[in-house]
Amino acid sequence: MNATLYRDTLDEKIFQIPVCGFCILQIDEEVAKLLELKARLGGDDGKHQFVLKTAKETLTGKYGEDSKLIYDLKDQGGELLSLRYDLTVPFARYLAMNKITNIKRYHIAKVYRRDNPAMTRGRYREFYQCDFDIAGQYDAMIPDAECLKIVYEILSQLDLGDFRIKVNDRRILDGMFAVCGVPDDKFRTICSTVDKLDKMPWEDVKKEMVNEKGLSEEAADQIGEYVSMQGGMDLAERLLQDQKMSQSKQACAGLSDIKLLFSYLQLFQVTDKVVFDLSLARGLDYYTGIIYEAVLSQAGVESVSVGSVAGGGRYDGLVGMFDPKGRKVPCVGVSIGIERIFSIMEQKAEASAEKVRTTEVQVMVASAQKNLLEERLKLVTELWNAGIKAEVMYKKNPKLLSQLQHCEESGIPLVAILGEQELKDGVVKLRVVATREEVDICRADLIEEVRRRTSDAS
Amino acid sequence: MNATLYRDTLDEKIFQIPVCGFCILQIDEEVAKLLELKARLGGDDGKHQFVLKTAKETLTGKYGEDSKLIYDLKDQGGELLSLRYDLTVPFARYLAMNKITNIKRYHIAKVYRRDNPAMTRGRYREFYQCDFDIAGQYDAMIPDAECLKIVYEILSQLDLGDFRIKVNDRRILDGMFAVCGVPDDKFRTICSTVDKLDKMPWEDVKKEMVNEKGLSEEAADQIGEYVSMQGGMDLAERLLQDQKMSQSKQACAGLSDIKLLFSYLQLFQVTDKVVFDLSLARGLDYYTGIIYEAVLSQAGVESVSVGSVAGGGRYDGLVGMFDPKGRKVPCVGVSIGIERIFSIMEQKAEASAEKVRTTEVQVMVASAQKNLLEERLKLVTELWNAGIKAEVMYKKNPKLLSQLQHCEESGIPLVAILGEQELKDGVVKLRVVATREEVDICRADLIEEVRRRTSDAS
Repeated sequence: MNATLYRDTLDEKIFQIPVCGFCILQIDEEVAKLLELKARLGGDDGKHQFVLKTAKETLTGKYGEDSKLIYDLKDQGGELLSLRYDLTVPFARYLAMNKITNIKRYHIAKVYRRDNPAMTRGRYREFYQCDFDIAGQYDAMIPDAECLKIVYEILSQLDLGDFRIKVNDRRILDGMFAVCGVPDDKFRTICSTVDKLDKMPWEDVKKEMVNEKGLSEEAADQIGEYVSMQGGMDLAERLLQDQKMSQSKQACAGLSDIKLLFSYLQLFQVTDKVVFDLSLARGLDYYTGIIYEAVLSQAGVESVSVGSVAGGGRYDGLVGMFDPKGRKVPCVGVSIGIERIFSIMEQKAEASAEKVRTTEVQVMVASAQKNLLEERLKLVTELWNAGIKAEVMYKKNPKLLSQLQHCEESGIPLVAILGEQELKDGVVKLRVVATREEVDICRADLIEEVRRRTSDAS
Repeated sequence: MNATLYRDTLDEKIFQIPVCGFCILQIDEEVAKLLELKARLGGDDGKHQFVLKTAKETLTGKYGEDSKLIYDLKDQGGELLSLRYDLTVPFARYLAMNKITNIKRYHIAKVYRRDNPAMTRGRYREFYQCDFDIAGQYDAMIPDAECLKIVYEILSQLDLGDFRIKVNDRRILDGMFAVCGVPDDKFRTICSTVDKLDKMPWEDVKKEMVNEKGLSEEAADQIGEYVSMQGGMDLAERLLQDQKMSQSKQACAGLSDIKLLFSYLQLFQVTDKVVFDLSLARGLDYYTGIIYEAVLSQAGVESVSVGSVAGGGRYDGLVGMFDPKGRKVPCVGVSIGIERIFSIMEQKAEASAEKVRTTEVQVMVASAQKNLLEERLKLVTELWNAGIKAEVMYKKNPKLLSQLQHCEESGIPLVAILGEQELKDGVVKLRVVATREEVDICRADLIEEVRRRTSDAS
């Protein structure tokens, strides 16, 4: 349960009423109260620090140019609020607040972006993310490789068609910018422009770099050469020998890690889908090492462009930003975009003739005659109490036809029919909806019979 | 998926960008743009109406005096926002917007209340609710009884100790207020005061009625007599004969339905926990018929007072409030408070010696010697690909002791140990953590052996 995450005690001196994802403060009044309380508790020995933070402060400075998509909220009580933008920053905050130094967990929850929605492509302002993260001080690239293995497994098992996982490293990007002559203070903004390469042709990206961001044409052209490169471990080896790239220590560290990563990915048997791609940038500021993004190939799915369906990377500095003493907890993780995957699955389901069942009900308790509501309720209770998924129509005297129609429409496989005769004989007429076959079953054997007939179907 | 709920089209002329639970409007600018668009689309034939609604308007007028707990938010772009207060109002809005006239569904999601949190009792500002609702035009009390059956099943199966489900009817309350001489315009506010009877003694409730709400002492005393009554079907029958109560048509309708409800509850075998209790009020304005609330008896659990863990009722008018033509869809439902139930389960778990496993990992792939990371990764891949829940430590050369300790701490039952000798012999040493028994298993048989040994444990 997430809700148990933020039980900060007064003892910890974190004066927030945090409700996962939000920090709520009535600043003016509360500061006065807390200072008074602090004075009464005695002493200001430096150890006890008041941490006054609003959700906005929690979120800013972490997403780069995407920050404009944060939902900033302000409620009528003067409390400053923002809706969470992703699950990564709240996770990092949780680790810091609870002094957790290693954990592996997944988390499925909603996030909010003030973006332009595009319903058909599965882009909403409120949407689900499924995050998986590994936090802790470990040997290089082992947890990173596991994250990629997990993305590979998920996308393979969901059967969404062919996919690729692009991999790069923030240090390689920074090293590349340095050796191409990008000024230090322009790394982040140029990185955001490179991130647009999956939506814009290189010519437009270059224009933005030169005209909007003030980069020299020469530097832009050099970047252009590098970002067109794709490969595997071999490309990393080649770039380690590259005259320019090898001048950057940072780039070399990143390239060595890419090599190591690919050696683990080979053991995990996933290299057939993973590509080292120097154009992958990812706009978020918090990444410090490896970054990756999974994209579906369009071949299998007609005319649906959903872009990337998963992305992530290493963020070794984020937890430390929330820790009063700056203690770092290295992290690597991945976010899966649920709606984007669902929009593809929906299109696939629509394209196929197969009907998707929206209920798991195994048997409908029905009657052909009037005044048998009580008998139906008695029988459905027997089935429910035995753990069988059963249903009755909420009518005193429903027509048999409408009961059977409901079963056909919602794919309920069996109907247990009661009539005066069946009650007299101590039996139930069990009807198989698909074949219309009917057979009298002794009432005492009904539960066993329903179980037997639905055990392979469900 | 909820996120697919609100796909309003331009065609419907509902100019909102709704993200479940929120309606977002940039009113000033947008109105101008839309009027222009409307003019261009041509015609104002009366059919196309602009519906401009903010989240606040969506939520107000539905929760009575509890409205003050709604999180009203205002973001910097001037969009008016509120966080959802419960799942019922968004559900009703969804039915109206999508013209759904019957559905049965459950929904687990977060809601927000600007209340004072009480962590130990499982009360937070942000918390989960689990809702179950049945919408549709059906015969009286059949879906209502099913909701109570479900609450009974959940609370029984969670094994939280003894519980009671209190039942009443909004019409009985209103009828009672009428025959006791409460003025019409004070029904709602007096109802809110009656709702406090589970937290305050009658004397204080009476004081609030008389001193704060201006009710006559005589009327308050008459209410006091009724709200002390508890029983079953018999009490409903008695009150139908009650000289005063029988004067109210509304009360009689409610009492007849309570009788009918109890007859269904008998068939569902749940009457041992259900009590007809005239003091049950529930503050929310949207209820129109039966209301109910489940409370845990304190006997089983030491010193934990969590109050009600589930509540709900019939709300036949709510969907119509969101429908442009006011079309009604009768609904009945229940909300289960997840945190409150979890806080009890946590206390129970703490009290018992039993260790709760936080991972489902079946086997840890370990090694006793150095330089076997690659071999460990190969083996864990074999296990993962076979669908076995397996783990490796993210270290190149972890100590065997720390690997075994991790298994003991997190309750991982098996360890698959690799060493030079095992690799040479084509075997894996399988260790049972609990007994420390070790046995060499032929590598080809390992998956089967792990499955066999964990099939009953997991």
